[in-house]
Amino acid sequence: MALMPVTDSLFLLAESREHPMHVGGLQLFEKPEDAGPDYISEMHRTLVRTTDVRPLFRRRPMNPVSSIGQLAWTNDNDLDLEYHVRLSALPTPGRVRELLELTSRLHGTLLDRHRPLWEFTLIEGLQDGRFATYSKVHHSLLDGVSALRVLQGSLSEDPAERDMRPLWSPRVRDNVSNLRPEPEAGASPLQGLRDAARAVWDIAALGPTALKVINDAFREQAAGLAFKVPKTMFNAAITGARRFAAQGWPLERIKGVRKAVSGATLNDVMLAMCAGALRRYLIELDALPDKPLVAAVPMSLRTDSARGSSESTLGGNAIGIILCNLATDTDDPVTRFAEIRESMQRGKKVYHGMTPLQITALSAIPMAPLAISMIPGALRVTPPSFNVMISNVPGPHNPLYFNGARMSGIYPLSIPYEGQALNITVTSYAGNLQFGLTGCRRSVPHLQRLLTHLEDSLAELEKALGA
Amino acid sequence: MALMPVTDSLFLLAESREHPMHVGGLQLFEKPEDAGPDYISEMHRTLVRTTDVRPLFRRRPMNPVSSIGQLAWTNDNDLDLEYHVRLSALPTPGRVRELLELTSRLHGTLLDRHRPLWEFTLIEGLQDGRFATYSKVHHSLLDGVSALRVLQGSLSEDPAERDMRPLWSPRVRDNVSNLRPEPEAGASPLQGLRDAARAVWDIAALGPTALKVINDAFREQAAGLAFKVPKTMFNAAITGARRFAAQGWPLERIKGVRKAVSGATLNDVMLAMCAGALRRYLIELDALPDKPLVAAVPMSLRTDSARGSSESTLGGNAIGIILCNLATDTDDPVTRFAEIRESMQRGKKVYHGMTPLQITALSAIPMAPLAISMIPGALRVTPPSFNVMISNVPGPHNPLYFNGARMSGIYPLSIPYEGQALNITVTSYAGNLQFGLTGCRRSVPHLQRLLTHLEDSLAELEKALGA
Repeated sequence: MALMPVTDSLFLLAESREHPMHVGGLQLFEKPEDAGPDYISEMHRTLVRTTDVRPLFRRRPMNPVSSIGQLAWTNDNDLDLEYHVRLSALPTPGRVRELLELTSRLHGTLLDRHRPLWEFTLIEGLQDGRFATYSKVHHSLLDGVSALRVLQGSLSEDPAERDMRPLWSPRVRDNVSNLRPEPEAGASPLQGLRDAARAVWDIAALGPTALKVINDAFREQAAGLAFKVPKTMFNAAITGARRFAAQGWPLERIKGVRKAVSGATLNDVMLAMCAGALRRYLIELDALPDKPLVAAVPMSLRTDSARGSSESTLGGNAIGIILCNLATDTDDPVTRFAEIRESMQRGKKVYHGMTPLQITALSAIPMAPLAISMIPGALRVTPPSFNVMISNVPGPHNPLYFNGARMSGIYPLSIPYEGQALNITVTSYAGNLQFGLTGCRRSVPHLQRLLTHLEDSLAELEKALGA
Repeated sequence: MALMPVTDSLFLLAESREHPMHVGGLQLFEKPEDAGPDYISEMHRTLVRTTDVRPLFRRRPMNPVSSIGQLAWTNDNDLDLEYHVRLSALPTPGRVRELLELTSRLHGTLLDRHRPLWEFTLIEGLQDGRFATYSKVHHSLLDGVSALRVLQGSLSEDPAERDMRPLWSPRVRDNVSNLRPEPEAGASPLQGLRDAARAVWDIAALGPTALKVINDAFREQAAGLAFKVPKTMFNAAITGARRFAAQGWPLERIKGVRKAVSGATLNDVMLAMCAGALRRYLIELDALPDKPLVAAVPMSLRTDSARGSSESTLGGNAIGIILCNLATDTDDPVTRFAEIRESMQRGKKVYHGMTPLQITALSAIPMAPLAISMIPGALRVTPPSFNVMISNVPGPHNPLYFNGARMSGIYPLSIPYEGQALNITVTSYAGNLQFGLTGCRRSVPHLQRLLTHLEDSLAELEKALGA
């Protein structure tokens, strides 16, 4: 028996049918040239036989029914791999649309707490001959960044490599040997929430001076926004069903826009794409507020770790939440882009010179409503401190293969929360920036339209900036 | 707003992720001869466009999150039919095995309480060219018998009939206009549980004389068994995942066995098939108890409705639960069959001359542990009053069609409970007796083996009786 950290059990205790607490990943693969007609079913048979399962993928809550029992882990010695590793097929015509529909449904069901908290689905029937995998893991086991690293660790840059093992199996060069690897770079949106929970415990240990720094800094960030965060259709009670949309854009196009504005980052361009798309989406539904939307953007921040070493419990790296003005009130893409850049720079400055714990505590303030919103009925009295979470998780640069099958795309699925019905997570891979949009199926209708709006938004930026 | 009857809300309040409270039906269809290549996707498009939805399929709990809100129904005026009506496909090779695997998964997930409590899945990809439908409805809306009648009402005996509407749509000759039609014949296992809950309220209104009749009758039925119900592997805590197996047998074979023993009923033969199969299954797993297994068998019983008219609140028909000795301790199929017959006759006699309310109250006694077992942790202290629920729901005699597609089979999916990990429900259709076995995926391993055992058990009876 292993006691869970408080932050792990939080994700189990807060889970309900409206708030499944798992992250997911959708991967697309091209079959190797020598693939036979039974390629997928043979792969499935091989996967189901890979019963050498790493410890992380054997753990389950000690007693799934009582709350107390969710505070300890136990190992499942009777692992039913046919339950966890599934084979599914797309109905005709087998377009990406049917794939996203299936993925939405798979992402909307709860994991079974009587078993290790993960599922893996191999998906056949894409009309272009590719196949897909959807993996799902409870956030109490892995956050989005770590899950991506586990997945990466199961792939190879060498198209000739064979006898590779699936992600739940231990491997020779294991780059994720820890149960919960610290993110090295990038920022998981969920890490923010985890840290918010941890901060509740850690802040109590801070002295009054440190608290004053945090308080002043928060006032500064809030003042920087200089307006009240509007309530939008995304800041509503959510249901358990999900809708997922995904698409990739060539990094060359994003870089083209970045080069047109000195000092801009790829992240700024990505945020500007999202801002333009959200504006178009809300106008179409006649739901655009007068005030601009505010995004919560988790960022990896370098910190002055020399300062107050006793407070540096998170190491020299920390995730800060930046509240970004998406400038959705302006029609002009160039003005909008400039305001987003400025807002991000101002947000980063607030964290300058702070210790990791101070950053965490400051980041916990805008995240607090999320934690509060998990209490049923609480939403009505909590104003949103942001409208939508947008995160950028760095992904692999080079093409990756699984036993010769080239991965052609990877799209993250995240967790909508009560009062936060839409989550946008992007990741880069092999020359593309790939967007994964996860929304509550009821609160965010026609989610897939955001993909068209993202393209239009990027094209608009390219045109306006001559990129 | 419509207040729910207490018995409806019971099924909502008692639901948890371990106990999804929905019933289901799997139907197999043959495509009509003139079906084109897009037959299934066209059918799906037509179904999703059938937005004229009958009131029962528009209802949802008023407030899905709070317990109090589950006591009232509201109408969903914003029905998202694409959510409820799904298109799925089987992976290759598309055998019945893949169909049962998919059905098991679909039956194991919870319905979304933020929406009307039903789902309908059209399934393509069977290698023999047939297609399937799986429908799922919460037990607070319809019990198994009523659900079967709603389904039947959406089908036709005329293969030439077209422009037929799906089961969620109102129709001209509506034979299920009531929200909860009283079962006319046959017995739903869940009706028993519903009645058990109702009996808690009604028994309080009975006078002491009536209670004495019930008490004496129960002692008689329990005495008839003359042994303590053994604890088996089926009487364990259950998990949320399900495994479903289904198969049909020609009624001619069942009738052949019945004719060989004077006074036997088709139901007796069905029970003997189950008894032999359960014995073989438990022997294979080295888990056969010394004492014989006891089945709870819901039966439709004619009653003396003239007696105490004020007590006849259930009309002239009532469902009685009979505790049947399955005689799994004997190796001889003929002895086993005889003991089952005798046990059923003794069980029916106990109810003779009772009023419907008395029957209900008596039936509630063996069902009570089910109600108690819904309280977490209660199982450990409650001995089983039976080992497995076996019910026979009468189905349609003649072949039925949906817009020219002939239904070749219909298999019921029921609800395993805490301490009752296996449910067997059979129904007759067009010359076949069709078995649907629903089990907890963890507590009832290799459930599909029971199908082979059922065949072996029937063959054994045929051989022993020269049928």
